[in-house]
Amino acid sequence: MDDLILHEYAPSGNCYKIRLTAALLGQPIRRVHYDILKGETRTPAFLANVNANGRIPVLQIGARFLPESNAACYWLASGSPLVPVDRFDQADMLRWMFFEQYNHEPNVATLRFWRAFVGEGALSEAQRGQIAGKQAAGEAALALMADELESRDWLVGAGPSLADICLFAYTHVADEGGFDLACWPAIGRWIARIKALPGFVPLQD
Amino acid sequence: MDDLILHEYAPSGNCYKIRLTAALLGQPIRRVHYDILKGETRTPAFLANVNANGRIPVLQIGARFLPESNAACYWLASGSPLVPVDRFDQADMLRWMFFEQYNHEPNVATLRFWRAFVGEGALSEAQRGQIAGKQAAGEAALALMADELESRDWLVGAGPSLADICLFAYTHVADEGGFDLACWPAIGRWIARIKALPGFVPLQD
Repeated sequence: MDDLILHEYAPSGNCYKIRLTAALLGQPIRRVHYDILKGETRTPAFLANVNANGRIPVLQIGARFLPESNAACYWLASGSPLVPVDRFDQADMLRWMFFEQYNHEPNVATLRFWRAFVGEGALSEAQRGQIAGKQAAGEAALALMADELESRDWLVGAGPSLADICLFAYTHVADEGGFDLACWPAIGRWIARIKALPGFVPLQD
Repeated sequence: MDDLILHEYAPSGNCYKIRLTAALLGQPIRRVHYDILKGETRTPAFLANVNANGRIPVLQIGARFLPESNAACYWLASGSPLVPVDRFDQADMLRWMFFEQYNHEPNVATLRFWRAFVGEGALSEAQRGQIAGKQAAGEAALALMADELESRDWLVGAGPSLADICLFAYTHVADEGGFDLACWPAIGRWIARIKALPGFVPLQD
């Protein structure tokens, strides 16, 4: 197995997904920290050597670099029980992972970043104009998850998959973005199930 | 093989991805049309029976429903040459597909929808406030693709994969959103390669 290096900003849920997947699989991973608030992922060296898209996380596998958090989780979990073997279930897992990046992260994670890291006073006018829309869209994403979790323990199949891990990352800290998780008790029960998985590690460690 | 039904709005690039994948694989698919401009994917019946997220496309496989365009493409192409077998390449293909949904579609596709379908005069103030940011982010996404395509024919591995198909859908009509593809000649050459693939079908058919 090649050495694995996670290029990351530790408070990011996108980076945490990868650490959590690796931990659940018992896979050691070395961590290299960048402060995104200081622009450390936009330097010429980072853009040339790690990710031309100027973003973390990036999973380094030997000499190769894999951006996009959910793709990195997929690489780590390939062939493990976290990726269902059934053709429909595997696509359905990816369905939730694309939903996470399209409907959930840009709302739930962005409001957390704006409110808990940048601070509302430091937002641009264009950003402030998006808060109401992102609040509504984030609530809709959480409600959709909660509806699904009313009738099942895990989002896909009979056990935990990357769909659960990837959506857990920003969902369990959604309160930092101004979302009241008490509105969706099914999500609270699902969070407790994930925290009880063998090998679980918290976001801040 | 179960009967396949694509619940779609034909001008949507997200729906076109699925038709193009099916066509390249020689897989027949039945099409059911919804007019998103008339809210036909927000009706109680659609939400209850097709997709609780109120969006198209949805790929119906027998009695099961698979939302998210890139997940539907993945289901269709599982086991075909459009999905690389190599572990890194498969994850790298998904990397481009997540990039498409996170960095490309919300900018390149949304500006096309706003400018060519809704009309700038009908946009809300919050939407108009996002145009400049989406224009810059869309150009950055196209530049990233172009940089990659300067040195290779396909985004992953030695042949076309879902990474190319999924990014082609909105890239080749980016001019309708106000992007000048002449700025990125490598993208123009890649578009020509995709249009020359056996089985290729155009967006409007």
